Amino acid sequence: MKHFKIKKIVKKIFKKFKLSDKHAEISSEYLIKAELVGAPSHGLARLKMYCERLKKKIINPKPKIKIKKISSSIAHIDGNDGIGFVAADIGIKLAIKNAKKTGISLVAIKNSGHYGLSSFYAEQAVNKNLIVFCFTNAPPAIAPYGSKKKLFGTNPICFGTPTGNKIPFILDTSVSVINRGKIRVAAKLGHKIPLGVALDKFGKPTTDAKRALKGVQLPIAGFRGSGLAWMVDIMSGVLTGANHGGKVKDPFDDFSGPQNVGHLFLVLKPNLFVGKNYIRRIRQNIRTIKKLPKIKGVQEILYPGQGINSRYKKNLKKGIVIQKNILEDIKKLNAVK
Amino acid sequence: MKHFKIKKIVKKIFKKFKLSDKHAEISSEYLIKAELVGAPSHGLARLKMYCERLKKKIINPKPKIKIKKISSSIAHIDGNDGIGFVAADIGIKLAIKNAKKTGISLVAIKNSGHYGLSSFYAEQAVNKNLIVFCFTNAPPAIAPYGSKKKLFGTNPICFGTPTGNKIPFILDTSVSVINRGKIRVAAKLGHKIPLGVALDKFGKPTTDAKRALKGVQLPIAGFRGSGLAWMVDIMSGVLTGANHGGKVKDPFDDFSGPQNVGHLFLVLKPNLFVGKNYIRRIRQNIRTIKKLPKIKGVQEILYPGQGINSRYKKNLKKGIVIQKNILEDIKKLNAVK
Repeated sequence: MKHFKIKKIVKKIFKKFKLSDKHAEISSEYLIKAELVGAPSHGLARLKMYCERLKKKIINPKPKIKIKKISSSIAHIDGNDGIGFVAADIGIKLAIKNAKKTGISLVAIKNSGHYGLSSFYAEQAVNKNLIVFCFTNAPPAIAPYGSKKKLFGTNPICFGTPTGNKIPFILDTSVSVINRGKIRVAAKLGHKIPLGVALDKFGKPTTDAKRALKGVQLPIAGFRGSGLAWMVDIMSGVLTGANHGGKVKDPFDDFSGPQNVGHLFLVLKPNLFVGKNYIRRIRQNIRTIKKLPKIKGVQEILYPGQGINSRYKKNLKKGIVIQKNILEDIKKLNAVK
Repeated sequence: MKHFKIKKIVKKIFKKFKLSDKHAEISSEYLIKAELVGAPSHGLARLKMYCERLKKKIINPKPKIKIKKISSSIAHIDGNDGIGFVAADIGIKLAIKNAKKTGISLVAIKNSGHYGLSSFYAEQAVNKNLIVFCFTNAPPAIAPYGSKKKLFGTNPICFGTPTGNKIPFILDTSVSVINRGKIRVAAKLGHKIPLGVALDKFGKPTTDAKRALKGVQLPIAGFRGSGLAWMVDIMSGVLTGANHGGKVKDPFDDFSGPQNVGHLFLVLKPNLFVGKNYIRRIRQNIRTIKKLPKIKGVQEILYPGQGINSRYKKNLKKGIVIQKNILEDIKKLNAVK
């Protein structure tokens, strides 16, 4: 289906569940974008969940989002338990504005929810010719190093910079080795998973996908990845006033209250120290790395962001493929009066 | 040997090689600290190299370090090719001062050199009750994802925060799977190295340590770690005006000119958004994670910085063990007139 058609339907559904026209526009835009970049786990598969939470008012459909100015560079946003996309959208736009004025800006957001992909916010800053870091925490998914119980979210580290060409450099990497979806697929197909990816429920390393599903996922690179996940939890949770330390609620499973996810945006001007040369320098950097001798089977050395960009362009033309069960959900939600 | 005794000797040696008393003090302090925290590869093993570079004036013994104020939050330092410790020491102290005033600060340093461990600088900020990120680039050591040639340095990501107790949370993680030293040891002992750690000179994955030494090391977690290393090169090299894209010179092998390493310090106040509650929140965060059920064989879940802290305390009492060949070097350097 063409993305603009499905977006129209999703927007209508969000409005049925009491989002304002503007908030429904923002939320449907980000949701469809996840489909377009080939991240369906962050896309339409979440629509039903958002609507259920809106209906139960644990996502506040009419949030009074408060913006507190700390300085000309720093601001604190209280998302008032509204849908994550909206508070984050306000946050990144404010961070961009402040960074343009002062060179560097920091926006912290609390009482928010799942906001889709960090790269969507990073992209906005990069398109305004800025460097950006985005941090967000998430419900428990991976075990801290040494533990057999999940606590950290997949806690992505996201970084973006202008490149001097149309495709921005956007690294958006979770700190889990492989995502749960891939383990589910392996379990279905009876495939083994690599060692070091997950523990069984007794805390033993396993290559059995089914056992892994009952256990926990592991962070990348052991102590290193665990430390990075911890860092992201501190920056987006402890610092901002949001939930942290495993307290962010799972939006699919836990309807006992709002998620209270935290986000943190740090934005800066790339020309602070080298002036206009920044673009020449980053071009040269990327060119040098792309020219390196490649290992067998590799056609091109890609920089982060290139893959997502080409999937986006392809899907813009091709349209979005919606799974049958999700299509059913959308039809049902659209039929709600 | 007791650390203060050896520090005195090292300081004297640095002065023989024309460092000012103050710069010799700073440099010997950081060098000995690397030994004390159990990172000898960043310690006395580098003294001879520093002296050779000072003698050849590719480390400028009398740098005119220039500080350019960009705003009350932002500064740019030109290290004038002096020894890395000194420019970085000035940089972190300035970043601390500015963050105390404005809530957030950014200091970029170019024309610097290897500065020891990032955690030394992070620690200074944390001890002043601040949150800190340190980035630095380094000579080529690991291959970008898809390439068979090394280009990125081990490019550490370093993050620190106060914890409300005496041991700061300091994550200081390189983005290589294991360091070259460990591969060297495996080669000597005829041990295999894990798959996914290194490529041979033909770009093929290898578990043979000797072949790995002729090839390249790999980043943690494939594309993810490669992206993180790239991010650090951009933040500490492209942004600051320092060398980048594999141009940082290897201090041991390349005497054709100064290294031109870049560093970036970002410092912020932890109480910006949650006021005095920050310490209560971070304590609670750490306590929650420490209380998680542990996997078999794990005594305690450690937070980043605890390990280095206990080694430091132990070595302060026990003294530093200096390898024979390095002791010979020190004696020779001390005999220079």
